Amino acid sequence: MKIKLATSYGFCFGVKRAIKIAENTKNASTIGPLIHNNEEINRLSENFNVKTLHDIKEADGVGKAIIRTHGIPKKDLEMLLKSDVQVINATCPYVTKPQEICEKMSMEGYEIVIFGDADHPEVKGVESYAIHGAHVVQSVEELEKVNFKGNKIAVVSQTTRKISEFLEITNYLETRYKEVRVFNTICNATFENQDAARELAKEADVVVVIGGKNSSNTKQLHSICKEYCVDSFLVESEKDLDPSWFTGKTLCGVTAGASTPDWIIEKIVGKISEIKV
Amino acid sequence: MKIKLATSYGFCFGVKRAIKIAENTKNASTIGPLIHNNEEINRLSENFNVKTLHDIKEADGVGKAIIRTHGIPKKDLEMLLKSDVQVINATCPYVTKPQEICEKMSMEGYEIVIFGDADHPEVKGVESYAIHGAHVVQSVEELEKVNFKGNKIAVVSQTTRKISEFLEITNYLETRYKEVRVFNTICNATFENQDAARELAKEADVVVVIGGKNSSNTKQLHSICKEYCVDSFLVESEKDLDPSWFTGKTLCGVTAGASTPDWIIEKIVGKISEIKV
Repeated sequence: MKIKLATSYGFCFGVKRAIKIAENTKNASTIGPLIHNNEEINRLSENFNVKTLHDIKEADGVGKAIIRTHGIPKKDLEMLLKSDVQVINATCPYVTKPQEICEKMSMEGYEIVIFGDADHPEVKGVESYAIHGAHVVQSVEELEKVNFKGNKIAVVSQTTRKISEFLEITNYLETRYKEVRVFNTICNATFENQDAARELAKEADVVVVIGGKNSSNTKQLHSICKEYCVDSFLVESEKDLDPSWFTGKTLCGVTAGASTPDWIIEKIVGKISEIKV
Repeated sequence: MKIKLATSYGFCFGVKRAIKIAENTKNASTIGPLIHNNEEINRLSENFNVKTLHDIKEADGVGKAIIRTHGIPKKDLEMLLKSDVQVINATCPYVTKPQEICEKMSMEGYEIVIFGDADHPEVKGVESYAIHGAHVVQSVEELEKVNFKGNKIAVVSQTTRKISEFLEITNYLETRYKEVRVFNTICNATFENQDAARELAKEADVVVVIGGKNSSNTKQLHSICKEYCVDSFLVESEKDLDPSWFTGKTLCGVTAGASTPDWIIEKIVGKISEIKV
């Protein structure tokens, strides 16, 4: 049986960068988990003494604080910078961008619309840079309830949103307001993994999707693969592998959710290659 | 038989304004016909001595030159202003707007897209304000052939375009470029006349559409009315009225194309009211 990896899988650019920063920093604390993967967090803790804080309130007294890819609200960052804590900023550059746009556009008198989930840490951070506040919406229905004061609107998106849904938001605004300044701040990493998984599932006769069983991102990958290959299985570790899945198969596709580190993927691929089919 | 006018018909705001300007100016020449209606042009000529020039080249030596609603290219305006001719600018404010936007945005380093017909006088005028030129496109297919140099694009529309087609252009750009500055410069006058004609045709049992038989705008109104009321007729003057159209009818709807002056409409409505049904 041949094993083939998807052309795009696992960590995105921003997460890879943040983990590299954490490894290089050592003896530090991240504000919130760096990634939704406990094994990776344990590895960083054991090998690099990088601990995880639940909250910024716990940062008081830690020597070095790492800001994760999502970023943090502006006033939290300012507070940290004023304190004795050394701040290492691993905010993804694709997240810094909408933060800067919100600040600049609100200074230029634009009303700000953020397409995204108001409860998501990334969006909370981005929103905090809009000096007069922002309208955070997830749908046109929510947008319809917004009372704009003027005719100049700037729009950004949470990085993980779908472009088709973003365009619904911009179309609504462009139909009704004189000037709409559209900043496409969507990052394609998630969709690249999905597209690659789809292509892989089309040619494979068994697919292994590696990732957390509660990770919505991994579950989505799994569901895409199942559409094109019925024998698609979600595994968290090599213990979940069932040799019977591979009996009589010729091509095993492997992909992984955005929170799955490469070393877990390698371990599982090694295990699959040992299975007698 | 009752006669009912559409809630919106005939001249738009910009044309009404330009005609008022021409009447107030008197003894002047317009650069190109002020409106696509010969009877109105004759009236202005006979009652106010406002003549029509074919071309800006004929402006040399005329005392007063009136710029019509479409506007003229920037360098033509500058040439006129430097000459001995007194310039009266009747460019529609809804056209001045995209001219100003093109100038400002190109000075700020945006590449300019104009959604419209490159051969239309309005578009030629608007385009002339883009200091480094503009990409004039009528469709996404044309847009696909454009090579943009950067990631900052500003978009305006010819005033008479459909919003749904404008959004196709902006969606294409927003999917591909980092910043798209969308200026909705569409004027709703045309669509207001069409919407009103549709509503009127639904309730009337005969409809009279007044306007030039070669006017695409009037023909479109006529075709909308026919969809909802089979007995819809296009007339240019009261001579075209056929009394048999109204036999046994109870409600006659009346609407008019964007180039039809009120005095023609009044004359025809008067004539209809005299017909015995």
